[in-house]
Amino acid sequence: MQLTRVAVQDIIDTALREDIGAGDLTTQLIVPPEIEATAEIVARQAGVIAGLPVAEWVFQTLDPQIDFRPLVEEGSEVRCLQGEAGRGHVVANLHGQARALLTGERVALNFLQRMSGIATLTARFVALAHQAASSAGLPSPRILDTRKTTPGLRMLEKYAVSVGGGTNHRFGLYDGVLIKDNHLALAGGISEALSRARQSLPAMARIEIEVKTLGELEEALACGAEIIMLDNMSLEEIATAVALARGRAKLEVSGGVNESNIEALAATGVDYISIGALTHSAPALDISMNITQISH
Amino acid sequence: MQLTRVAVQDIIDTALREDIGAGDLTTQLIVPPEIEATAEIVARQAGVIAGLPVAEWVFQTLDPQIDFRPLVEEGSEVRCLQGEAGRGHVVANLHGQARALLTGERVALNFLQRMSGIATLTARFVALAHQAASSAGLPSPRILDTRKTTPGLRMLEKYAVSVGGGTNHRFGLYDGVLIKDNHLALAGGISEALSRARQSLPAMARIEIEVKTLGELEEALACGAEIIMLDNMSLEEIATAVALARGRAKLEVSGGVNESNIEALAATGVDYISIGALTHSAPALDISMNITQISH
Amino acid sequence: MQLTRVAVQDIIDTALREDIGAGDLTTQLIVPPEIEATAEIVARQAGVIAGLPVAEWVFQTLDPQIDFRPLVEEGSEVRCLQGEAGRGHVVANLHGQARALLTGERVALNFLQRMSGIATLTARFVALAHQAASSAGLPSPRILDTRKTTPGLRMLEKYAVSVGGGTNHRFGLYDGVLIKDNHLALAGGISEALSRARQSLPAMARIEIEVKTLGELEEALACGAEIIMLDNMSLEEIATAVALARGRAKLEVSGGVNESNIEALAATGVDYISIGALTHSAPALDISMNITQISH
Amino acid sequence: MQLTRVAVQDIIDTALREDIGAGDLTTQLIVPPEIEATAEIVARQAGVIAGLPVAEWVFQTLDPQIDFRPLVEEGSEVRCLQGEAGRGHVVANLHGQARALLTGERVALNFLQRMSGIATLTARFVALAHQAASSAGLPSPRILDTRKTTPGLRMLEKYAVSVGGGTNHRFGLYDGVLIKDNHLALAGGISEALSRARQSLPAMARIEIEVKTLGELEEALACGAEIIMLDNMSLEEIATAVALARGRAKLEVSGGVNESNIEALAATGVDYISIGALTHSAPALDISMNITQISH
Amino acid sequence: MQLTRVAVQDIIDTALREDIGAGDLTTQLIVPPEIEATAEIVARQAGVIAGLPVAEWVFQTLDPQIDFRPLVEEGSEVRCLQGEAGRGHVVANLHGQARALLTGERVALNFLQRMSGIATLTARFVALAHQAASSAGLPSPRILDTRKTTPGLRMLEKYAVSVGGGTNHRFGLYDGVLIKDNHLALAGGISEALSRARQSLPAMARIEIEVKTLGELEEALACGAEIIMLDNMSLEEIATAVALARGRAKLEVSGGVNESNIEALAATGVDYISIGALTHSAPALDISMNITQISH
Amino acid sequence: MQLTRVAVQDIIDTALREDIGAGDLTTQLIVPPEIEATAEIVARQAGVIAGLPVAEWVFQTLDPQIDFRPLVEEGSEVRCLQGEAGRGHVVANLHGQARALLTGERVALNFLQRMSGIATLTARFVALAHQAASSAGLPSPRILDTRKTTPGLRMLEKYAVSVGGGTNHRFGLYDGVLIKDNHLALAGGISEALSRARQSLPAMARIEIEVKTLGELEEALACGAEIIMLDNMSLEEIATAVALARGRAKLEVSGGVNESNIEALAATGVDYISIGALTHSAPALDISMNITQISH
Repeated sequence: MQLTRVAVQDIIDTALREDIGAGDLTTQLIVPPEIEATAEIVARQAGVIAGLPVAEWVFQTLDPQIDFRPLVEEGSEVRCLQGEAGRGHVVANLHGQARALLTGERVALNFLQRMSGIATLTARFVALAHQAASSAGLPSPRILDTRKTTPGLRMLEKYAVSVGGGTNHRFGLYDGVLIKDNHLALAGGISEALSRARQSLPAMARIEIEVKTLGELEEALACGAEIIMLDNMSLEEIATAVALARGRAKLEVSGGVNESNIEALAATGVDYISIGALTHSAPALDISMNITQISH
Repeated sequence: MQLTRVAVQDIIDTALREDIGAGDLTTQLIVPPEIEATAEIVARQAGVIAGLPVAEWVFQTLDPQIDFRPLVEEGSEVRCLQGEAGRGHVVANLHGQARALLTGERVALNFLQRMSGIATLTARFVALAHQAASSAGLPSPRILDTRKTTPGLRMLEKYAVSVGGGTNHRFGLYDGVLIKDNHLALAGGISEALSRARQSLPAMARIEIEVKTLGELEEALACGAEIIMLDNMSLEEIATAVALARGRAKLEVSGGVNESNIEALAATGVDYISIGALTHSAPALDISMNITQISH
Repeated sequence: MQLTRVAVQDIIDTALREDIGAGDLTTQLIVPPEIEATAEIVARQAGVIAGLPVAEWVFQTLDPQIDFRPLVEEGSEVRCLQGEAGRGHVVANLHGQARALLTGERVALNFLQRMSGIATLTARFVALAHQAASSAGLPSPRILDTRKTTPGLRMLEKYAVSVGGGTNHRFGLYDGVLIKDNHLALAGGISEALSRARQSLPAMARIEIEVKTLGELEEALACGAEIIMLDNMSLEEIATAVALARGRAKLEVSGGVNESNIEALAATGVDYISIGALTHSAPALDISMNITQISH
Repeated sequence: MQLTRVAVQDIIDTALREDIGAGDLTTQLIVPPEIEATAEIVARQAGVIAGLPVAEWVFQTLDPQIDFRPLVEEGSEVRCLQGEAGRGHVVANLHGQARALLTGERVALNFLQRMSGIATLTARFVALAHQAASSAGLPSPRILDTRKTTPGLRMLEKYAVSVGGGTNHRFGLYDGVLIKDNHLALAGGISEALSRARQSLPAMARIEIEVKTLGELEEALACGAEIIMLDNMSLEEIATAVALARGRAKLEVSGGVNESNIEALAATGVDYISIGALTHSAPALDISMNITQISH
Repeated sequence: MQLTRVAVQDIIDTALREDIGAGDLTTQLIVPPEIEATAEIVARQAGVIAGLPVAEWVFQTLDPQIDFRPLVEEGSEVRCLQGEAGRGHVVANLHGQARALLTGERVALNFLQRMSGIATLTARFVALAHQAASSAGLPSPRILDTRKTTPGLRMLEKYAVSVGGGTNHRFGLYDGVLIKDNHLALAGGISEALSRARQSLPAMARIEIEVKTLGELEEALACGAEIIMLDNMSLEEIATAVALARGRAKLEVSGGVNESNIEALAATGVDYISIGALTHSAPALDISMNITQISH
Repeated sequence: MQLTRVAVQDIIDTALREDIGAGDLTTQLIVPPEIEATAEIVARQAGVIAGLPVAEWVFQTLDPQIDFRPLVEEGSEVRCLQGEAGRGHVVANLHGQARALLTGERVALNFLQRMSGIATLTARFVALAHQAASSAGLPSPRILDTRKTTPGLRMLEKYAVSVGGGTNHRFGLYDGVLIKDNHLALAGGISEALSRARQSLPAMARIEIEVKTLGELEEALACGAEIIMLDNMSLEEIATAVALARGRAKLEVSGGVNESNIEALAATGVDYISIGALTHSAPALDISMNITQISH
């Protein structure tokens, strides 16, 4: 994924207006307009940096004159030798009117902290899964996100997942068919649901279907399902499912995945592991901004 | 805080359009339009429920005919006897066209899970602080949120903090003056900054100022500061600060507050403890929706 | 596809504001506010009706009291015995305040005429392709739309294509990979492009690739392409392509398809025929509104 | 008419967001960000070019660095010597980041094709009317558009009509009074309607009234109507109407105008001929974009 | 003019969000949600009431359950016997949830006060002009508004002018040609400007031209101008102008019109007198809201 | 207060679209696109200039190439020696494409006239209050605005008040608690209302309460109210109130303040005098634009 400014600008404008409202009282009262300053954005925790272009656009929206220089590439892993310098890792420098730097600080950091938090958590799961799969002599399963994203920020959060090495599942209800238990109840079973879905499916859409038992899995395979989601199965069931599905369909494990069970899941040989927590529960990465130089 | 629909409708519309896009493929292909259904929204984790009105508005935006009945009050604490029924706590029932229920499910839950996650984390900090302060024979400090909120969702997240028993700090840059280290550097010190801020301060705005040392605290008190934020001070320094400030100014502790140190901080006698994690790192509460009955 | 009001309301509001501006001068000056009227919407040309829900929402946006009754189902084919009554086919009745009926008329018809025009043209191509394929003992190829839609109306136009019996191609740049000649030039060839695309492809996205020669087709098949677009090939080449690709990939014919060549193309055995004209050049269906009764 | 960017930007943003959504998958996966390219926009059909500024703004919205050079003037008639080069007529060159060129291509062309289609059809009617009127020794009637435009695009479509040599009728319900049959039915006749309309008419608004018979025409003339629309009259009636109205009112012919009858209508001496098809049924002009050069 | 809710809703939403922001603190903290109340809206100054539908929509936007009953018709003149009851004139009653009444009060009154202020000032000028013209045995000149309106509120302000008995001049730059001194300077004189304007004038647009001297007036008349604006002429010049223009063009007096000179101007026989102050300087009418009954 | 372009751009866009609509007919028809011009913005009345940045942004929105040079500082007091030059005071020069200057003129002036009108009226009240307080040996009371602002323009109008030397009261219902008579009736009295308000008051919000009698004032003081509004009290009561409240609370006088009574009120020693008329009834300052030079 790559971010396009025209697609992100509305969120940035909303965030700035939400924070600034009728004006940045503190800065206006205290900081004279003619002062310029240099600042640095610092990661104070180890993690994967995501959102640098968004942070830059935040400042440029406030003041196109601000000079924003990323010092690491989007997606870089930073470490923080807090024992030593205690300063963390400088990920960007910026220079411009001091008022604009201060007024934009919080919004820029709110984007950067959340996106980096998501990228960091994703990278952790990707690494764990890769290690476990490698040890088992298997290809690494892809770590997928879900639609459990923050309202209004899906694009940024799915982008952050991809920056962290994860793979995007469908973006919304419109770009893929995913038949879950509630749909099955309403459609009257797996084969009926699959047959209805195929009738007027868009040409490029795929169908995924959720199964709860190995019996359902066999029914889904028999109906030619391309992707099958194993809902809350035991490790043993998953292993059997992998054997059954080999070469006939891709398998996704979903539900209750966490840092304790990801390795065991990755060692079963499934193709995808989807994790809602990537976007709904990733803690923010600790990132802050310091004014480093003032020029009157 | 109370939510007003006119203020929240835009976020709801954005979230629905983000998820639905050109249409809910699965539901359209599989679920006939004439089927009605009953569903329940279930908390599968113990916590404080926040966001029920938002969930209701999500469904009503999709289809004004949907009947949404909350079964617990906003702000209720629910427990989940998972050992027993494993079903969790039903927080709302809803009935209407099956397609609309399925199409709105994810967006409604995304709001509810995030807001309940914030309320739950807030309630935990409030309880810990209350206990510690009570034991020490002190009034409970207020647990404050910060501006470290998700872009575009500040109103909902600050509301969730208040539902969880927390107290809102300022909403944005516009409704309070908060002089932090970067401002002080640019203004040339505490007394100069406070004097500038008072010159044309809006009539109802308060001024808060951040200090790093007890010397700065004394300077701020001497200048008549109303609220003073103690930045990353040790417990001993905080205790001294409380003694110095008694009756002269309110004190806020900020920075690095977590479940391990909240009790010790609450026992120092400070007035406010602010916690960014309430909004930037609260894990979502596990809540889901089940179709319970189908009527053709 | 099914339309959701929340997704369409913005376009309706924009269209009404565009037409009404500071007010409907004629109606305000001439028609007293207390008059109620009944009206009928009449197709004066044979075709497939699409857009009745949109027309209804237009009137309800102006005045929620208006009673709108469709008399035919969305997607019905209407014939117009112009020789006889000259009146055409009544597709809906509506009743309400006369002013609101007159003020909404043009906008409702503008949607209905365009959408029905698209559905009508699509149905014609679908029928021609079906006949030709049947005669040749082949399954009917699907008639696909393209991204050559009217700016801002893609959802409505792709919906109209589906109402007319067509199949939707991808909705935008985001929900499918389609590698065309310009991309190939920039990527350095078919295998390189396909390999890059697969590296971090979203889990549910498909890849389609355009080829200009049978040689390129073989290369694409060798690389495991799922869908291949044959760009401006002759009927003979297409026939060869169908033989080569059988069971290995789906084939789409694209470019210069019209009512003269659709039958020959359909008889080649390709899977998909995409036609930009469905949305960029479909003439509007002639539909109008008449006041049939006035009640003071 | 002249387009103002501030008035068109919303439509451009909407169109880009509609097409790009969460990102241009193909380009992001396949085309490296550092590649620059040169491209040309080519008309592959003879016609009148309209919309070049819109195409330019589309690309500049995506990337302000793109250099867009029109090679023909807005409103130029281009011919395509397809027999010769088969390449069509290059109407603009552009240069910039290859990704941005590819991502903006479809939206820019969608505007350009539709607007040029309208301008081309308008120019054809203008030319036919002019020739017929000249032969009859009459001044050319003006070719008018209607309110039968695409929802949301009225400004662009009316602009395209003016580029093609047509004359704009009113823009919406707000900038002119046009009393049609439905209004007359509700107002109780021509003189009553005209008298009501004049009572509080805005100072610069004109009144036009539709008549179906020569009797109604005489009534309208007697009431001092300025512009009178002759609805579906025969050529003989129109000729009589022209004689009756000479010097007293302007006459507009409306309804069922097409390339077969325009000349006869133009030879009657009417002032205006309005044609809904200019905007609701103009086929798109065939225009495409080619990458001509790549620079790494 | 008549207001359409779809055209006004955006301004209402903006106004409510501007005032309510993150919530009505006072009401939420103090007024329990279950209390219902009755309130009255009272004019405390004599004047013409305009804006009642807008006030109603404001409350209905906040809470569709609120019952709003206008007690006077839009455009009524109210008198306030302040000596007697001191209570003013009740123009509407409303009933509903007390919180919603209080939260909507200020926004509803802000619309009502401004619109009624404009209607009141307009009515005063209309009456003065009418009296003076009648005394002189002349038809009353129309009192026109201008484009000197509040940004974003033009529709509401021009509507208020019409409610007060004034006549609307053009709504914007798009619905009429008004050639002023700056245009004349750039076009090189009256006849050149008029001839350019006529070349591709929309079919229903009128042309008005500003003249500064009687010589310019004669030139404009000779060129067939329909409406001529006399800019800052003396009463004598205006009288001469009226004699010159009789039957050939309509005359508008503009610039520096106030309550002292309106009568003399009206007695000259001009057709239109335009007054910027109607919208840019009308003082608000004093209107307030009182809770009259509370029901728990 | 200071204006931020991101917060004001929406109002500017709305105002431009409202005025320009489908295009500036006059300018397009009459002024060739290649002409450049210089213009000056002139205050033709004495007053305080506010809104120069907004005027600049209006022109830059239309055409980023326009060069706008303010000649006086925002907040300057200009005098107009009309007797002499009759030209007024030039407050800004601008240069650019003649069409853009003419098209933007009215919108830019509409902002500038209204904002300068507010600043001018505010400055007059500030000066009168200052003089009266000084003569009485008292500190000057602050002149406050209210929420009686134009819907959609609150930020600009409150900014204009601050430019004129006034002090902003709260911005909306969200950033301060103001308990008025209607709230008191619903809450059951002063102490109950104050106690409810304090229970979950945001940390930085202040509470103000309205009192009608000296008895109520004493109750409010006893409850520890910080700011107390004296509603329509006589000068004698106000004087007593000032004596009672000294050192315990700030007092605000509100209701019916005008140029006749401001001095007497200022001499009572109150802290704040709030005046709704600053924003709801300030007459516009007379400002216009002249083209001074034309370059082909």
